Amino acid sequence: MTTTPAPESPLSTAHQISPSLIATLPGNYYTDPEIFRQESEHLFESMWFCAVRSADLDKPGAFRTVQIGRENVIINRTRKGELRAFLNICRHRGARLCMEESGEVKRSLQCPYHAWTYDLDGKLVAAPNLIKMPDVDRVEYGLIKVHLREWLGYAWVCLADEPPSFEDAVMYAAVERLGDPAAIEQYGTENLALGKRIVYDVKANWKLIVENFMECYHCATIHPELTDVLPEFADGYAAQYYVGHGAEFGEEIKGFTVDGSEGFAKLPSVSDDQDRRYYAITVKPTVFINLVPDHVIMHRMFPMAEDRTIVECDWLYAPEVVESGADVSKSVELFHRVNEQDFEACERTQPAMASRAYRKGGVLVPNEHHIGIFHEWLLEKLGGSHAGPVH
Amino acid sequence: MTTTPAPESPLSTAHQISPSLIATLPGNYYTDPEIFRQESEHLFESMWFCAVRSADLDKPGAFRTVQIGRENVIINRTRKGELRAFLNICRHRGARLCMEESGEVKRSLQCPYHAWTYDLDGKLVAAPNLIKMPDVDRVEYGLIKVHLREWLGYAWVCLADEPPSFEDAVMYAAVERLGDPAAIEQYGTENLALGKRIVYDVKANWKLIVENFMECYHCATIHPELTDVLPEFADGYAAQYYVGHGAEFGEEIKGFTVDGSEGFAKLPSVSDDQDRRYYAITVKPTVFINLVPDHVIMHRMFPMAEDRTIVECDWLYAPEVVESGADVSKSVELFHRVNEQDFEACERTQPAMASRAYRKGGVLVPNEHHIGIFHEWLLEKLGGSHAGPVH
Amino acid sequence: MTTTPAPESPLSTAHQISPSLIATLPGNYYTDPEIFRQESEHLFESMWFCAVRSADLDKPGAFRTVQIGRENVIINRTRKGELRAFLNICRHRGARLCMEESGEVKRSLQCPYHAWTYDLDGKLVAAPNLIKMPDVDRVEYGLIKVHLREWLGYAWVCLADEPPSFEDAVMYAAVERLGDPAAIEQYGTENLALGKRIVYDVKANWKLIVENFMECYHCATIHPELTDVLPEFADGYAAQYYVGHGAEFGEEIKGFTVDGSEGFAKLPSVSDDQDRRYYAITVKPTVFINLVPDHVIMHRMFPMAEDRTIVECDWLYAPEVVESGADVSKSVELFHRVNEQDFEACERTQPAMASRAYRKGGVLVPNEHHIGIFHEWLLEKLGGSHAGPVH
Repeated sequence: MTTTPAPESPLSTAHQISPSLIATLPGNYYTDPEIFRQESEHLFESMWFCAVRSADLDKPGAFRTVQIGRENVIINRTRKGELRAFLNICRHRGARLCMEESGEVKRSLQCPYHAWTYDLDGKLVAAPNLIKMPDVDRVEYGLIKVHLREWLGYAWVCLADEPPSFEDAVMYAAVERLGDPAAIEQYGTENLALGKRIVYDVKANWKLIVENFMECYHCATIHPELTDVLPEFADGYAAQYYVGHGAEFGEEIKGFTVDGSEGFAKLPSVSDDQDRRYYAITVKPTVFINLVPDHVIMHRMFPMAEDRTIVECDWLYAPEVVESGADVSKSVELFHRVNEQDFEACERTQPAMASRAYRKGGVLVPNEHHIGIFHEWLLEKLGGSHAGPVH
Repeated sequence: MTTTPAPESPLSTAHQISPSLIATLPGNYYTDPEIFRQESEHLFESMWFCAVRSADLDKPGAFRTVQIGRENVIINRTRKGELRAFLNICRHRGARLCMEESGEVKRSLQCPYHAWTYDLDGKLVAAPNLIKMPDVDRVEYGLIKVHLREWLGYAWVCLADEPPSFEDAVMYAAVERLGDPAAIEQYGTENLALGKRIVYDVKANWKLIVENFMECYHCATIHPELTDVLPEFADGYAAQYYVGHGAEFGEEIKGFTVDGSEGFAKLPSVSDDQDRRYYAITVKPTVFINLVPDHVIMHRMFPMAEDRTIVECDWLYAPEVVESGADVSKSVELFHRVNEQDFEACERTQPAMASRAYRKGGVLVPNEHHIGIFHEWLLEKLGGSHAGPVH
Repeated sequence: MTTTPAPESPLSTAHQISPSLIATLPGNYYTDPEIFRQESEHLFESMWFCAVRSADLDKPGAFRTVQIGRENVIINRTRKGELRAFLNICRHRGARLCMEESGEVKRSLQCPYHAWTYDLDGKLVAAPNLIKMPDVDRVEYGLIKVHLREWLGYAWVCLADEPPSFEDAVMYAAVERLGDPAAIEQYGTENLALGKRIVYDVKANWKLIVENFMECYHCATIHPELTDVLPEFADGYAAQYYVGHGAEFGEEIKGFTVDGSEGFAKLPSVSDDQDRRYYAITVKPTVFINLVPDHVIMHRMFPMAEDRTIVECDWLYAPEVVESGADVSKSVELFHRVNEQDFEACERTQPAMASRAYRKGGVLVPNEHHIGIFHEWLLEKLGGSHAGPVH
């Protein structure tokens, strides 16, 4: 087993209380509906948001609907096989086009109220008594389009008029974390198959979930199975703590499974350096990527309210593993337990955010100082309009 | 079958986007609790509000309680057989006098908390240890009276100190729509008997229900049974579109029933012009009247919140029909289906009102331009104090 | 039976409407979340608050958690047998230390998130990777302590930095009411045993419950069992109305039981003057004490929202009564019925507080004028910052 020296903490100038301690965000950042509204506006509805797994839309006409900030978005596959995303609302009188979470249409999306009909590229193609009128433009009155990019086998959408650079805002998170643009590509995530999906309804603010994922100071306390597999986690240093580092499997451990038993064959392009290691990446604001030699675990968060977050977690394997019907339950069970342990901790933390004891926030110990960077990023994103810390 | 030419659209100067399209209200008018509060104050608690069917209070001492805006109102029949309406709250310490939706008392309404007792005209007639004191006036400390008028067999109440003219504010809606003050009287609605009542709990703003009732552009899409009976509705022109027009039954149709089968005998004073026709009247803000030769359908809305409306729908027939125990289910079923189809459409529209896509509202096509008049009326009623459209 | 002359009403200068009537608080005091927030700040989180029965924490390490205003407080017994109270929140990242309502630990309270560990005096005694760092003080980063006093066998806590005098703010209520500092001590409440506890979830503002407890004008109407036992209550004068008075049992009444049957032996130090009498004391803001010769009934309120209050009611008897397994159901049943009758009246009153009819409040009759003193006390406590009455 590799011994991990305590690394230097990442730079954080803000909120330094003492050499050991820096302040977290004040409690109202986790409880105030107005701050959640600002986050919806400036983060979820302005940044790239990982919405659906591309392969879930497996044929032309397939669609999914997802909640992104305050907007409901429909993503569908066109007849040519491309993905498109639109606000899920008819341009006429505002009815929601699709109420279902997923489904399939033939050639068009038809509003069930007055039968305004849009093709799968969003163009208005029929509207009773109206469509021939020269002043009603089929594109101008088409569905409101949302930007869409595919990466790692997922559709990432952006509701901003001018989206930020996808490379800088999304892909760079993996480069920065792994130290190498090629590293994440070696897992070939976009070619993997879905082995298991579990959806969690967490009664906690989304930032508590991010902060929890970013540190491993809690691992020794609440993750017995994970620290068995990754012994260095028992020391409290997060896999995300320094560039390029992946937590190594324990000597006796055969695979990334709940009991350390054998997993599956290493994914074909995973390098020897990457073998027997666990890498975690946070793609702000709402995505976690977990890389192990034989599978990839993707977390997508859907913040619903200041105190509620839906988390959708996908376990992805080599297609032949899934096709063969191999038993993935032991590798699923490991991170499913981690998820449940983490989300319970977040739910236990949420109610105390309103206490006078957290009015100026809590403290981050050295192992957690890098969370301060997340807080600074958030404050910068909310800009001058955000409600100030209460002092 | 009469062919219906596309009529000229009613005048609407506001929000004209193009010859074909005018704007609806902005989305916040359907989602903002503050606007709902203004509507409660300026509409439901200031205008005549159709509260209960008079015959439901069938003897002295019978009472009903209804929610009107933010107030709970009790309506009862006095010993002399007249209807009276009061705020349902004891003048002493504020207990609600009657918790039940309906009931019967003997000679008085007694508060169950401290036994302050009011006669059926609202006068304070007993209060332990108090009533003989000279400074406690029995009228001044009587129940707070609410104005009441009866029309079409219903009690309409007004919570304003100075109610608007009933003739102008309520009865004129029928004149304006039917073109003739006598036309509605010929149905003798106040003499009809209740065949069926269905109460709907609709998760939508009351104005979406009004707008839906005012137009028939959606009829072809969602009302197959109704357009079978009234074929011109398939063209999208509402029965309310021009003065005096009633939609004619299809040639094969024998009655206003779910399958077009025979209904009941024409009501005695219904004219030949009115026979085999359906007339709809909107009495703003919360009443719809539907007239067919053999029955009358009355909708009363009770707006409960910006996103919730209770709708009580009565099917009224000649007394001999109800007394004979005749099967009214086929005529009830027709409009019950229409109600369910309409309310589902409204519920599908409500959540999208908060979308950025509806921030400036949607659009009204020519068949719907008359809804713009409803919007102008609303804006005028809310006056200078209303929250402005978001642009 | 003693005849009770109508006493002079206590002084109340405010809100005098006429010789017979003075005004209550305006309705918004019972419905406005902002006023409830002010009450949480200025009353529940600033005054002495009766939190738990000391004997419920029967050994070292036993703890209870209670909601006080907006704060969750943990009260535990130390190894030395003393009671301590703390905000129930870890100083590190804010997790709630104990989620349970009650439980038992060995020597410390450990946060289940990152294992920060506090001794039962609140001192930080362990924190992984951190505790040896010189800049992390074990007391400064200990649990946030809350003041605690024991009286009548209950732990009263105060969240203010500088608590008011316990003698003036709490104990004086009994002196003022009974006219004699020794009178309450004669019941030896702190030595009694718990015979029964019932918890009520009341959908009403806490002040409606206080006002109800302070007057007996409602007794004749809603408390048949109680007025059978205490006939003078049928006249409407509260036991709290004048100093030192206790309501006398009816001539035929043998004990303070639901049917007037025999109770238990008089508590040893209860005087002859106190025998066969019922005394009630309101300790503002949230405690009612009821004294009868053979038992004591303690009500503790936990205001949860402007329209919801949890009431915990304890029936306390001589230890030998409880140890013997004697049947206490007849004495419990009497006040349990009174509680249910009272809380139903409060729930019936709550919804009408929002009516225009209560915008300036209701009225207090002479038997209730002393409630005006409670209102004046409340207005003074809320000070300049409170929302003014609506006129």
